[in-house]
Amino acid sequence: MTTRLFYSGEEATFREFALQCHADKFILLADANTNGFCVPVFKELFPFLKSAPLIVIPQGESNKSIDVCSLIWDQLVNYQSTRHTVLINIGGGMLSDIGGFAASVYKRGIQFINIPTTLLSMVDACYGGKTGIDYHQTKNLLGSFQSPLAVFCNPFFLQTLNQRILVSGIAEMIKHALLSSPAAWQEIQKSGIEECCSIESIKHSLEVKKVFADQDIFDQGSRQALNLGHTIGHSIESYALQSATPLLHGEAVMLGLIHELKLSHELFQLPENIISELIEIKKRFYPNLNYEYSFENIEPFLLHDKKNYQGIRMSLLRDIGKVELQALVSISQIQHSFL
Amino acid sequence: MTTRLFYSGEEATFREFALQCHADKFILLADANTNGFCVPVFKELFPFLKSAPLIVIPQGESNKSIDVCSLIWDQLVNYQSTRHTVLINIGGGMLSDIGGFAASVYKRGIQFINIPTTLLSMVDACYGGKTGIDYHQTKNLLGSFQSPLAVFCNPFFLQTLNQRILVSGIAEMIKHALLSSPAAWQEIQKSGIEECCSIESIKHSLEVKKVFADQDIFDQGSRQALNLGHTIGHSIESYALQSATPLLHGEAVMLGLIHELKLSHELFQLPENIISELIEIKKRFYPNLNYEYSFENIEPFLLHDKKNYQGIRMSLLRDIGKVELQALVSISQIQHSFL
Repeated sequence: MTTRLFYSGEEATFREFALQCHADKFILLADANTNGFCVPVFKELFPFLKSAPLIVIPQGESNKSIDVCSLIWDQLVNYQSTRHTVLINIGGGMLSDIGGFAASVYKRGIQFINIPTTLLSMVDACYGGKTGIDYHQTKNLLGSFQSPLAVFCNPFFLQTLNQRILVSGIAEMIKHALLSSPAAWQEIQKSGIEECCSIESIKHSLEVKKVFADQDIFDQGSRQALNLGHTIGHSIESYALQSATPLLHGEAVMLGLIHELKLSHELFQLPENIISELIEIKKRFYPNLNYEYSFENIEPFLLHDKKNYQGIRMSLLRDIGKVELQALVSISQIQHSFL
Repeated sequence: MTTRLFYSGEEATFREFALQCHADKFILLADANTNGFCVPVFKELFPFLKSAPLIVIPQGESNKSIDVCSLIWDQLVNYQSTRHTVLINIGGGMLSDIGGFAASVYKRGIQFINIPTTLLSMVDACYGGKTGIDYHQTKNLLGSFQSPLAVFCNPFFLQTLNQRILVSGIAEMIKHALLSSPAAWQEIQKSGIEECCSIESIKHSLEVKKVFADQDIFDQGSRQALNLGHTIGHSIESYALQSATPLLHGEAVMLGLIHELKLSHELFQLPENIISELIEIKKRFYPNLNYEYSFENIEPFLLHDKKNYQGIRMSLLRDIGKVELQALVSISQIQHSFL
């Protein structure tokens, strides 16, 4: 199923689309944060949803759990949701991941719409049909492939984000630039935070995600390019989740990208200057990101990575826009990227 | 994805198929019952699976729960299952439902094979891509559409079943005959338990399921024929689940079929003699099935039925082999079928 994409300014067509999608009921899902600011703004934009039932769940990655999923199911039952009910996920990547997963198995699957409210979710998580929750401290151990019916993307929501959460999303934009073209890579090196938050930058970045995701919805081939930075990034994120100072997803991806570009250089001769340029970008957008971790901290999570097959697999780069999929990387090579 | 069907006598081709399906590991799932008898028999038939890891869960419909699902996920993690691991569900419908569901969301979906060990699962649950667990006392409230990679069907396992569990499966065979042809309906009226358990009867009955399921894998059209007897049957089953004497699925379906044929007569002029013939069949196969329930007991469950859309919907019969899908049935008509 193709996901319809709507951007701010297209409120009227989104409304028309929603009213024609044969929903017997819309239910809004938000977290404590987005309930405060985004839900009222969203209801102002779409008065026909003003009286829609609302489910509020606790915020933060540590709540992307089976227990919080159960809270959503309880409320779906409570509101007598049928197979024709549509869930509207208003929030960042955590919310669309858990909301999408909860919807995808409720009565064997109800439709959902994503309203991304963070930069990260606007350029990445809102689109592409991967849902998931964490389990046993492993990111997205449970999940499904289920595309949202539609996405409505409005950068206005970004005004409410604190700087750390806002900037976190830029890591995925950096990844998309690396996967895209030398021009996109030049562009992001010149951009500041404000440029990254423009609707044009968001559209361009989401377009990169869309091209890869649409080619390969079940993630068995070319889409794996999007895992760049994520094999090691997810492991760092899983490790950090257990600590007193968890990292944001984008921060972990930023760190993962550095390791994986080093491996790209070692295994596939990625030009070394790209690593230096990436480190410069990190200093500019993430001046305070000095998280301490060792290879030994990360190793157990790497061994549980979903992509593993006869060893640890990751997507690496030969050059900007030239990806090597399912590269088999040895433990010692990974260890070397930590030096 | 098409499910490959294998029957007893085809052990060599099943083995070849399994060895060529690119699994990095097979994991067996059984319940306390099937672990005792069926797993050893299965391992005798397939020595290459003798050392496969085994997950054992508690038996019975009341364990088709999110908690038991978590036990399966815990063990899949414990055995370091990857996306290329294949789960082999050895058991009845409860086991293939929960095992299929657990597999379908683990790492966004791993493959599974069903080894049905009850008559009910051989003619119905083993095939067709519906997985599910119960939640909030509602049958299959959570689930997915995911077809097994293969099914291996061996009536030898039926020898271990107690009479009540064995006969329970005949209700689905009765339903398949009603959906199929006057010849099939005549045939089952003449059959005893032994005839029903023959490989030919099982093949014929599963073939009816296969034709409907393959036409409409996501259950949006013609497949809904298979719901005959199940709208009211599931509600009776859900109610009974809360009581000290829960019904078996087939027993509830047997009761549901009687209500729904009465409604078929009232709404669509199904010839009345078919109802009498069905009641005769019930007396023959289920002489001790005298479960007490009222319309008021069942109503709350009917109102939560997944198929509801602008009212209560069910699949009814105009005649043998002639189904009316999504028939809108009023509360008072249903109430009347309880008189």
